[in-house]
Amino acid sequence: MRAAVITKPGGPEVLAIREVEDPEPGPWDVLVRVEASALNRADILQRRGFYPAPPGVASDIPGLELSGTVAATGEHVTRFAVGDRVMGLVGGGACADLAVLHEREAIRVPAGLTATDAAAIPEAFVTAFDAIVLQGGLASGQWLMVDAVGSGVGTAAIQIARALGARSAGSSRTAEKLERCGPLGLDLAVVGTTDDLAKRAKAELGDGVAVALSLVGGAGVAAMVAAMRATGTIVLVGLLAGTQANLPLRDVLGKRLAIVGTVLRSRPIEEKIAVARAFEDRIVPLFEAHGTAPPRLHPVVDTVLPLDEIASAHTLVEQNATFGKVVLSHA
Amino acid sequence: MRAAVITKPGGPEVLAIREVEDPEPGPWDVLVRVEASALNRADILQRRGFYPAPPGVASDIPGLELSGTVAATGEHVTRFAVGDRVMGLVGGGACADLAVLHEREAIRVPAGLTATDAAAIPEAFVTAFDAIVLQGGLASGQWLMVDAVGSGVGTAAIQIARALGARSAGSSRTAEKLERCGPLGLDLAVVGTTDDLAKRAKAELGDGVAVALSLVGGAGVAAMVAAMRATGTIVLVGLLAGTQANLPLRDVLGKRLAIVGTVLRSRPIEEKIAVARAFEDRIVPLFEAHGTAPPRLHPVVDTVLPLDEIASAHTLVEQNATFGKVVLSHA
Repeated sequence: MRAAVITKPGGPEVLAIREVEDPEPGPWDVLVRVEASALNRADILQRRGFYPAPPGVASDIPGLELSGTVAATGEHVTRFAVGDRVMGLVGGGACADLAVLHEREAIRVPAGLTATDAAAIPEAFVTAFDAIVLQGGLASGQWLMVDAVGSGVGTAAIQIARALGARSAGSSRTAEKLERCGPLGLDLAVVGTTDDLAKRAKAELGDGVAVALSLVGGAGVAAMVAAMRATGTIVLVGLLAGTQANLPLRDVLGKRLAIVGTVLRSRPIEEKIAVARAFEDRIVPLFEAHGTAPPRLHPVVDTVLPLDEIASAHTLVEQNATFGKVVLSHA
Repeated sequence: MRAAVITKPGGPEVLAIREVEDPEPGPWDVLVRVEASALNRADILQRRGFYPAPPGVASDIPGLELSGTVAATGEHVTRFAVGDRVMGLVGGGACADLAVLHEREAIRVPAGLTATDAAAIPEAFVTAFDAIVLQGGLASGQWLMVDAVGSGVGTAAIQIARALGARSAGSSRTAEKLERCGPLGLDLAVVGTTDDLAKRAKAELGDGVAVALSLVGGAGVAAMVAAMRATGTIVLVGLLAGTQANLPLRDVLGKRLAIVGTVLRSRPIEEKIAVARAFEDRIVPLFEAHGTAPPRLHPVVDTVLPLDEIASAHTLVEQNATFGKVVLSHA
């Protein structure tokens, strides 16, 4: 099969398109003809040699999320048949024309979505859903607060919040990204730092924030505490802004807050399956037309490039000026 | 009725025994003839004027926990009849000969326990049970870690851990207190600070700690992170050692830890009832003889004094040299 290969650690120029051996599905796996894959910051780290693929995954083929069509099924597979459209998260190897997924980790593609749109869903929306709903317990009527809200996970989080009847506040250093978050459901937009966001949320959201999502970590996590309502949860998903936060324990105790760290990639398969199943059940229908149901969810795609141009796609992600996903079309 | 009264803010000498009006039970309340009450650090703060009683509670009668006999019942009460033995937590007013409890907040006294032993149970054991089991999810086979393990909540926590099939590590600055924790079920005793405890736990407990209970807070909370196993929970219950902790977010995220602050006294009644009901169901039987069941729980009582000597009892608690509860007998 055709695959993008990391020939050695380095810049985008170390990526090459090669012919490699096809992967073999196990008895509970589906073999997927990949139609599109999407890029993540972790791909850049892996290309530079800082984020090795986990055991059992091709170490030199990047790509953590994909969409495509089932091309073959292992002997015990019951959920999917050849020709079904699936999407999902993989430990690596999505930037290839064939990939293998456990049938219970594979997620059906929402009706009506293109392959390139579907490839933009898994990492952003599964991470956001898991963090704010499964970990944070966000429910209707409540406020969500998100730093770096213009990111892939941020734009997914505010869409999910709106679809569930919750409201959202978010910050970004870039005013233009914040403006584009308005139509996605952002109710309170703050140009600035996490500290600025927390101050505005504390001043303007009478009830306080039920769930805070920190995509960048750092000292701002401590500032979030002041804006939380009693029994709220701060979910920590990323650390780009720093790895220390000086936590005000009196408020954590007095408000009975929870601060929860989370990461998807390193979880054992049974937990990944549980998240995928909950996502297919509760979030996939929200991408589909449902009579007069509330605003639908939309994958946020910045750019689509052919797989052959993966080096340009990496450069785009590294420039950090995109709004939404950079997707590779394998057609 | 007879009651201890805080005549003005100040030292133990401001406590006096007075005749005051009887409390009136509401339709869902039991009126309890108090046979014993127990002291807590919060009583000292309240006596000094730093911890006012919540609304709806006599502001000048101290006492947060009691045991006794039902003397009368409100018209809707179904769980208890006159003569039943009950114990429980109250917002204040336990240091009096009569007290009022919602029938669903009242907890039956374990068979065979004296009134003074029963009065030593609620605050220590309900706090410990709520923190390590309901908030922390401690289960059999796992390790619990407790700072200030020689305290009332600490000695309750290690006993509950052992009864559930879990193991415990704990620290105290006082070697003699640690020695007395051995027979209560402490498996790894560390004389020293929370940092010392965390280092020993990390070095010696291969699996890592599933639930950490911080009774004193402070910088040591950050040190606990290194000893936790993946998906562990640090439960924060007190702040005597400090109100700031510089949290290492990389480990919190990578291990998917939760840091949870908790407090019982300020919770709404429905949550207090839920905890009381779970406690009666799951912990009260562990104080009773159960065939060949594992070691029974024991209230840890340091000293019993008559209610008339409440000033001496306060002085004892303030000297901080007790191991276990100081109990007042109302007989």
